[in-house]
Amino acid sequence: MSIEYDYIRDPQEIYRESFAQIEAAADFGKMPADVADVAVRIIHACGMPEVIDDLAWTDDFAAKGRAALKAGAPIIVDCRMARDGIIQNRLPANNQILCPLIDERVPEIAKEIGNTRSAAAVELWKEHLEGAVVVIGNAPTALFRLLEVLHDGAPKPAAILGFPVGFVGAAESKDALIAANIDIPYMTLRGRRGGSAIASAALNAVAKDNK
Amino acid sequence: MSIEYDYIRDPQEIYRESFAQIEAAADFGKMPADVADVAVRIIHACGMPEVIDDLAWTDDFAAKGRAALKAGAPIIVDCRMARDGIIQNRLPANNQILCPLIDERVPEIAKEIGNTRSAAAVELWKEHLEGAVVVIGNAPTALFRLLEVLHDGAPKPAAILGFPVGFVGAAESKDALIAANIDIPYMTLRGRRGGSAIASAALNAVAKDNK
Repeated sequence: MSIEYDYIRDPQEIYRESFAQIEAAADFGKMPADVADVAVRIIHACGMPEVIDDLAWTDDFAAKGRAALKAGAPIIVDCRMARDGIIQNRLPANNQILCPLIDERVPEIAKEIGNTRSAAAVELWKEHLEGAVVVIGNAPTALFRLLEVLHDGAPKPAAILGFPVGFVGAAESKDALIAANIDIPYMTLRGRRGGSAIASAALNAVAKDNK
Repeated sequence: MSIEYDYIRDPQEIYRESFAQIEAAADFGKMPADVADVAVRIIHACGMPEVIDDLAWTDDFAAKGRAALKAGAPIIVDCRMARDGIIQNRLPANNQILCPLIDERVPEIAKEIGNTRSAAAVELWKEHLEGAVVVIGNAPTALFRLLEVLHDGAPKPAAILGFPVGFVGAAESKDALIAANIDIPYMTLRGRRGGSAIASAALNAVAKDNK
């Protein structure tokens, strides 16, 4: 039996209607316009307007992240799904996306430092960190380890998009980012929620020049 | 200034602690054990125990999905992020993961049928659908279109893991799956929430033999 469902099939109309619903469901009044653009894309990615209440950011993170990307900065991601959520043809300078987690040296480093593979990969981030845009969409241990190496004097990234997810360490690692006092622009989502879709949506919004 | 944060660094301990927290936070009593295994992994992927209240499923979907994978069935995904969340070395028969969305014919088909690229890709799913495991982690239009082609007599997949996300059509497409009466095992998450991380986590749980 043939059935035709009633749904919007035009991608432009889906896009317009989605963003109209998001604008109606969340209050972006407390945010600078370029931060609000990122928040909108985050909400779009997860379907949850209420995450706006848990977002934390420095007012300069979108501008600093965008400027870094325009200048050709690499993007460092903590996991493959975050990498694959990044819309490459929207990047302003054909920016490299580095995912050191998949480097074959990582398991050995993890044993050496007594930490997860995600945290071990941060050792391989170091040489690329200077001025980079960091995107964390999975591992709390990657964010904790990043903060540790930064406190130890590792080169500073231009911005940190910190969205680890889960039950063990995610909320704590993001609270640590907010409290770190390391003078690096960031956006994060307090609590257990996060993930690659949110992280890559945030990066895509930062990469897009709305002006 | 060197700072060492207090966090769990042992991946096995993170794993144990995560699942202990999930077991404590959600009531799996209404589910068959193999469905509960999938629900646990979904909650683990998104950090939200409360999604258990919005899950809907047929009691046979995990068993049917697993049997299909063991028999070598392909996995069809609606987007790259869902594909990349699948742990390939956990698949029981080195199963193919097909992502027709990236086929170069898709934009043309989308114009022809007047639908999104995600829905257009479903035309290319058809030849692989028989007995396949379908994983939808992004597009409501893909799920709507799948239901349409199934009502029109397309070959039946072994199971549908239906987790589109967002504001336009996501909740409606999942309600349509629940109401479709097409005798195909499924799991879905009612409402706007969903996404690739949840979809691929569900597939990974189905693929894992706990017995």
